[in-house]
Parts: sequence; structure tokens; C-alpha cells
Amino acid sequence: MSSEILVKQKTIDLRKKHIGPSCKIFFSHDPIKIVRAKGQYMYDEKGLRYLDCINNVAHVGHCHPDVVKAGAQQMELLNTNSRFLHDNLVLYAQRLQATLPHKLSVCYFVNSGSEANDLALRLAWQYTGHKDIITLENAYHGHVSSLIDISPYKFHQSDAEHNQSVHVAPSPDVYRGKYRADHPDPASAYADEVKDMIHGVHGKGGKIAAFIAESLQSCGGQVIPPVGYFQQVAQHVRKAGGIFIADEVQVGFGRVGTHFWAFQLQGEDFVPDIVTMGKPIGNGHPMSCVVTTKEVAEAFFSSGTQYFNTFGGNPVSCAIGMAVLDVIVKEDLQGNALRVGRYLTDLLEKQKEKHPLVGDIRGRGLFAGMELVKDRLKLTPATAEAQEVIYRLKEQHILLSADGPHRNVLKFKPPMCFTTEDADLVVEKIDHILTELEQALGLKMHNALGVENESSKRKLPTDENGHQCHSGLAHDTGSSRGFPQQTKRLRT
Amino acid sequence: MSSEILVKQKTIDLRKKHIGPSCKIFFSHDPIKIVRAKGQYMYDEKGLRYLDCINNVAHVGHCHPDVVKAGAQQMELLNTNSRFLHDNLVLYAQRLQATLPHKLSVCYFVNSGSEANDLALRLAWQYTGHKDIITLENAYHGHVSSLIDISPYKFHQSDAEHNQSVHVAPSPDVYRGKYRADHPDPASAYADEVKDMIHGVHGKGGKIAAFIAESLQSCGGQVIPPVGYFQQVAQHVRKAGGIFIADEVQVGFGRVGTHFWAFQLQGEDFVPDIVTMGKPIGNGHPMSCVVTTKEVAEAFFSSGTQYFNTFGGNPVSCAIGMAVLDVIVKEDLQGNALRVGRYLTDLLEKQKEKHPLVGDIRGRGLFAGMELVKDRLKLTPATAEAQEVIYRLKEQHILLSADGPHRNVLKFKPPMCFTTEDADLVVEKIDHILTELEQALGLKMHNALGVENESSKRKLPTDENGHQCHSGLAHDTGSSRGFPQQTKRLRT
Repeated sequence: MSSEILVKQKTIDLRKKHIGPSCKIFFSHDPIKIVRAKGQYMYDEKGLRYLDCINNVAHVGHCHPDVVKAGAQQMELLNTNSRFLHDNLVLYAQRLQATLPHKLSVCYFVNSGSEANDLALRLAWQYTGHKDIITLENAYHGHVSSLIDISPYKFHQSDAEHNQSVHVAPSPDVYRGKYRADHPDPASAYADEVKDMIHGVHGKGGKIAAFIAESLQSCGGQVIPPVGYFQQVAQHVRKAGGIFIADEVQVGFGRVGTHFWAFQLQGEDFVPDIVTMGKPIGNGHPMSCVVTTKEVAEAFFSSGTQYFNTFGGNPVSCAIGMAVLDVIVKEDLQGNALRVGRYLTDLLEKQKEKHPLVGDIRGRGLFAGMELVKDRLKLTPATAEAQEVIYRLKEQHILLSADGPHRNVLKFKPPMCFTTEDADLVVEKIDHILTELEQALGLKMHNALGVENESSKRKLPTDENGHQCHSGLAHDTGSSRGFPQQTKRLRT
Repeated sequence: MSSEILVKQKTIDLRKKHIGPSCKIFFSHDPIKIVRAKGQYMYDEKGLRYLDCINNVAHVGHCHPDVVKAGAQQMELLNTNSRFLHDNLVLYAQRLQATLPHKLSVCYFVNSGSEANDLALRLAWQYTGHKDIITLENAYHGHVSSLIDISPYKFHQSDAEHNQSVHVAPSPDVYRGKYRADHPDPASAYADEVKDMIHGVHGKGGKIAAFIAESLQSCGGQVIPPVGYFQQVAQHVRKAGGIFIADEVQVGFGRVGTHFWAFQLQGEDFVPDIVTMGKPIGNGHPMSCVVTTKEVAEAFFSSGTQYFNTFGGNPVSCAIGMAVLDVIVKEDLQGNALRVGRYLTDLLEKQKEKHPLVGDIRGRGLFAGMELVKDRLKLTPATAEAQEVIYRLKEQHILLSADGPHRNVLKFKPPMCFTTEDADLVVEKIDHILTELEQALGLKMHNALGVENESSKRKLPTDENGHQCHSGLAHDTGSSRGFPQQTKRLRT
């Protein structure tokens, strides 16, 4: 397959003609054509190199040779469904199990995070016999219809009827949420919200099947729940006969550095009833997994309904999955995530000391967020500024995205082979961009606390403001970004 | 990846420990371990060759070198999401579009037939603003929760609450259904059932979003709807403001021989509003597609909800999809399906003349069914006999399955490189098995019409009787199959 066949404009034209317009592209007014990638770098049709700070799917690095080889070799030999015995299936399940607490021992292999989360709901409904689901504010769990129902990030985008069995608890965001860092016990306070919600559901005759949350909220704005929150929530939910589903689709497989799974950040004493996996699991190969307890698996079995997934757990997917696990160990990528992640977070913290636009830095390993605000007391989201940052970074061949409910959180989730030099480069560029933006906006560090200025009164871009998970990358042209001329002039 | 790492019993033990018990295996009391496959043949750990009459996913033949090469080469170069421009995505969309009626021009690439059908429902709901779905008796459309709701094949397996917005129309089965081959106009009669159902829905305040059907029912028992049925249904459904979804997950890509898509068997004047694809599209690679009209795509877009699928439409999947299309053309597999399919159907028809157990032969190309009955007038399903046939075929290293609501339809859906010699082999074996079975049961051709005999009073196996799509392959041991001693003795 040649790396470029069509001239770029022809690619764009054909895309407009044949690809659903709901499938948005990054930087839609000047999209990037990527033809190859390696490690943490992507290359466009002219050979220009982009530093990739966002593709958490290419977990062990784009096109890792070990993963490619494992996939290619198995494709030559056999690729069929899991109704035949195959060693790859069981060995891979065993390998995954070994990364998890002992009681999470039964796997279901599927093709995507969405399929995984949908199956998790089916397991919860069947095991508990209950129907109601508690989800978090700003959560995103996937694109199939059952998951749109539990994804406020999505269902708030449309006028569709809200599913009455779905209940939205406050996001445990200690920066911008209901209970903040100055609260004596935000973990309990947020968990009590869930407890109260359960009582409310009971009051209306409902019954809780499950609480579902990403172990760290990603689209929701790189939110790191306070330690102890999951334990207390699990206690309330289990008391009500429900179970706890930890969605690790975005954040699992060593990304957080200190642990292999992000839910483990809550402490050794916390074990979910179901863990769902996705994106990084196959380094881009379409695969994912649901792991649960023997009890939940047996309850699902006892319903009499068999579960068959045509592609899930095929020998190629399992070979690729095992190769990914091997590379994580062989190259100590979890260790790298810890080291480089800390280095990156430290660099970002220094930016916070320097730039009034930086409201908060939060991160675990190579999962980090920089929240931009126009006012550090009022926390006024600096949405347009965040878009401007990522747009200018793109011009300098660095790929970063902005997300969260206000699309003002710069998200770092690069391939796990990201280096300290890469971190230096992106933070240096951000430093320059923030400096220019703040100059243009007349923002200075001494007036950053509580001082309202002209920037907060600007009209924000409305059409392509990233109202979509992963669409945080700026989509708009300079002319539609709604930026003051003062800022625009700075762009050369 | 070595072809066998564990001894078979260890594989079985690990599978019991780590794979959800709802994921059934073929021939569970003596499962097959397959370590490699090529063309229409699969090989177990001892090197024994099995003729594969069932794997419609390995469409152009297991491990086709052109497909493997295309996948491996692209995996080395780039595998990322469709938010970047890539030629593979648009070229593949263009290639798929060229196989379809002109108005079906907009593609959404996803990872499985289930994701495709779920998205089709979302498109229909959004486009029409309506909620009610009409599905067919015995239909199976996938494993995510929204599709269990529209799959009587599945939801009849459990006690789960039936979704009140889903309405089940009679299967247009002219052999066993409500209107049969002797009816003057079964197409209109079955379509009128849908019309009446629409009136009923309207009477209760409902509004039809879509009618969904496989173009030929597969799990439902290899059912071939009478020509003209889809046109009339589409007319009734569109009049009610709904749309027509043709599910080609099992039957598309040239399998029916005369046409590339099975819905085209209904005639040039029939064009669905949405076509969903799956299984064969990537020869086993996890991928699928939804194709629809510009109008439907624009309505979905106008909702404001973006659609992002992490793996869908990635450069590797598209490279593989194009390679599959290339092989179909290069090796004239559609022509082969027509020729070998006719040859196979003719052979099977001769079996019908010879064997009282054979009630009906139906097929289009390499999609064929042989329905076994114990009584040709009463159509008493010969369920246990069908299981016996596939079990004995397995002992002779031929893989066939039984499906349909009574699990009495032998299903042929082999890789498209299946030959006349393969057809000769499997039919010869079936001939021998049926002869032995009929001798044991005291069934003769002259008493086959309307004569009830002891076999129809037998207790059928209940535990592993294939109550699952694709589980039609016999799962049971000889001792649990509930077969009369007379028959059992014949097995040596």
C-alpha cells in the first residue's frame, strides 16, 4: 500500500462525499493527512513530523515492530472465532488476569470499548436483576445506543429523551466540582451524593444495577477522583444490590505509572466487580475485553442466553494483545510513564506558577491535564484560549487536544514511549503560546486572581468548539475562532 | 507464535477458568482445537484436516495471502483513527459504494456487525424522529443490548422484559411459515402482515422508525423471502415515515452468486435506506460498515451529535477490506459461488428425492439450507437428527451446523473458494448418515409422507440443543443426545 495515492484535496473531496458528516476530522478547515507513524511520531504526506501527545491507542508506540510481527504471523496461520479451542485465547486471558486482583478472573473478549461497556451493562442487569444505572456527570462510555444513555457527555448534545433508569452523580472533580480541594473530605462528600441518589431511586421504586465510572475521567476533563471515593461508592452501591464497573478503556495498561490499572490508585482495598478495557489493549487493533468475577459470569450464564462475538478473542487479536503486554514489560513502559509523567507534570506545574491562564495541573503518569481559566477564583473556563493553544501547536507540528465539559482542559495521553525531551518540547511551545496569548489579552500574573478582564467577555466559537470526545483538537480556522484581533496579529 | 503451546486438556481447563461460560464452544464435550487454516480447510493440533462448510467470515478463504499481506504491510506503516485524512478510508468507501445502488453513498466504518446494526438503529431513530422498530420472527441482529431487543432468536431465550417499541412480523418462510409455496402470492401476504402491524402500532400511538431484516435469514433457518416482499414492505414502512434496513452481515459480498448483495435478489427496483455489513467484509479482521443515503446521513449530522469510532475505518481495516474486494474479483469468487452453489443445491435436491428426512432444500449461491423433518406433511422438525448429522460429520472431519428456530436446518455457508469436489464429499457423507439414520428409525421414502413414526415421539436433547446462533454444531456427547439405542448402535 503506497503511502499517498491521492492529492490531499481529492482525499478531502472523497471524504465529504462518502464518509458520514458526523465523523469529524481534526482541524477540519485544514486537516492533517498522516501517511505513516513510528513510536510517538506521525508523518504527513510531505514527510513533516508531528509529535503525538494524544494517541493513547498507540500505547506502546505507533507500529511497534513486535506487535506488527505478532499480528502478521498469526494472520498467516489462523484467524477464526472462539468456538474452536485455541491457546492464544486462554493464554492471553491468563496473562490479563495476572495483572488484576485475583477475584477478577473471567474474561469476555469483544471488539471495542463500546462493546465492552455494553456487555458490562448486560452482565450487571442479569446479575442483579435490577435496571437502574448510576453514571457520572460528563462521562463518556461509548457510541452504541445503550452507552449514549449513560454518557452525559453525549446525551447532553442532543434533545433525545433521557433514559429514566439512568442517574447522573456529580463528577468527583476537586478542582471545579461541587466539593473541592479545600473540602475536609471530598471523597466522602462525593460518595454521599451517590448514597443519596440511591435513596432517591429507591424512593421511586427503582433498583440499582450498577455504578459505572472511568477510573480517571478522560473526556470529562482528566478528572482524578479523591482516594477512597470508589471504596465508599462501591459500599453504597453493593448495599443496594448493585455492582461497580470500572471503565479502564482510556486509562489502563500502565498509563498511570504507579499501577497497571487506574482503579488501583484508589488503594489495595478496592476491587471493582467488572473492569472494561479498550483502546490501548491492541495498540490500534480492534479488540477489547470485559473481566469480571466468577459470580457475575455464572449469573449471566444461568440466564440461558449464550454470548457469541464473531471476532472477539480470535487468535490474531490475542496474539497482538500478548505482544502489547510483552512490550510494556520489556521496555518498562509503565516505569517510563511514571518517570516521564512526573517530569511532564513538574514542567506543567512551573507553567502554572508563570501563567495566569493556567488554573490547574493534574495527572498520574502519562495521563495529565492542564486546565485553562480566565480567572483563578471564578474558574471561568478559557475555552477559546485552549483551542488557540492546540491550533498553534498543530502549526508547530505538535498534536494536543482540549476536552472536558468546557473544552478548556489540555489533555496529555501520548504513546507510552514519550520521552522527557518530548515533554520539554511541548511545554516550551505551550509556554511561548501562553505568553503571547496573555500579552495579547493583557493578562498578568498579579492580576490573575479574581480580576475579570476583557477576555472573559469574548464571544466563544460556537460551531466547532469540540463538542465531542477526542474532537478537542481545534477544528476551526483562524477567522472563525472568534479571537480578538490583538491575538490574531500575534499569529505569524 | 507456535501453533500449539499447551496440551489440549490444559487449553480446555484454562478456558473453563478464564473465559465466560456463556461463550459456548463447538462440540463442547469433545471440542476441536484448530491451529491453522487455509482456503476452505482447517487443521487441528494433530494435523487432521477439516472441510469447513460454515465459516462465512473466512470469505475469500482462510488466511488468504493477499489479505494477510495487505494487513501486514499497512500495520507496519500506520494504524490510527479516522480523525486524520487517509487515502485508504476514502478509496475503500468509494470501492464499497461502487458495489451498491447509487443512492447508497455514505459510509460509517465500525468494528462489528453488532456495532453496524446498532448505528443503523440510531440513524433510523434520528432520521425519522420515530421509535418503533419492526423485526422478523427468529431474527438475529447482534449481541449488544439494543439488538437483543430486536432479535427474537435471542430474547426468546430469556425472561427479560420485551421492549414495547419492538414488533415482530412473521418470517417470510414459504416452507414452514404462515404463507407457503402453495399460496398464490406469499410476498404480498407477508408484506400485508407488516402493513397490518403498522396500523396496529399507529393505533397505539406508536410511530415506525424502521423495518429491519437480513436479506436472507441465516440463524432464522436459511430463509429466502419471496421476490417482491421487500419492495412491498418498504412501501408500507416508508408510507408510515419509516425506513428499510437490510442486514447483509451474513449474506453479502457475492455469496448469493447472482448478485453482490442479497437484497438485490428482490429485483433492481428495490433499494434499502440502510445496508449493514459485517462478517466477511475483512475475512476475519474485526471491521464492518453501515452505508446509507445522503438524506439519512445529513439528518444524523443535524442532530449535533458527533460519531467517533476509535478503530472503525483505520488504515489497516480499510487495506484489508480492499484486498478482500480485490480477491473476490481476481478469483471470480462470486462466479464460483454461483456455479458451486448451484452444483451443491442440485446434489442436495437429489438427497431430498432419496431421503424422507429431507423436507426442503433452499439456497442462493453458497448460502444453502437443508431442512430435516420427520414428517413431510406435518413438517415435524427432525432436530435431534440434524444434531446427529453434524456430530457424525464432525467425526469424519467435516464442519457443518444446524440452525433455525427448531435447529433442524443444516446450514451451508462455506468460504467462497469451496469446490464441487468439496460439495461432492459433504453430500456423500450426509447421504450415508441419513441412510443409516433412516434405517435405524424405520423411515422409508414411501412412508415419509404423512406417516408418524416412533422418531417423532422421542425426547429431544434439551441441554445443548443449539439454542444459539452459530451454536448449531452439535455440542453434546453421544450419551446425552437422547437418541434411541437403535440409532446409537449404528455409530461405530
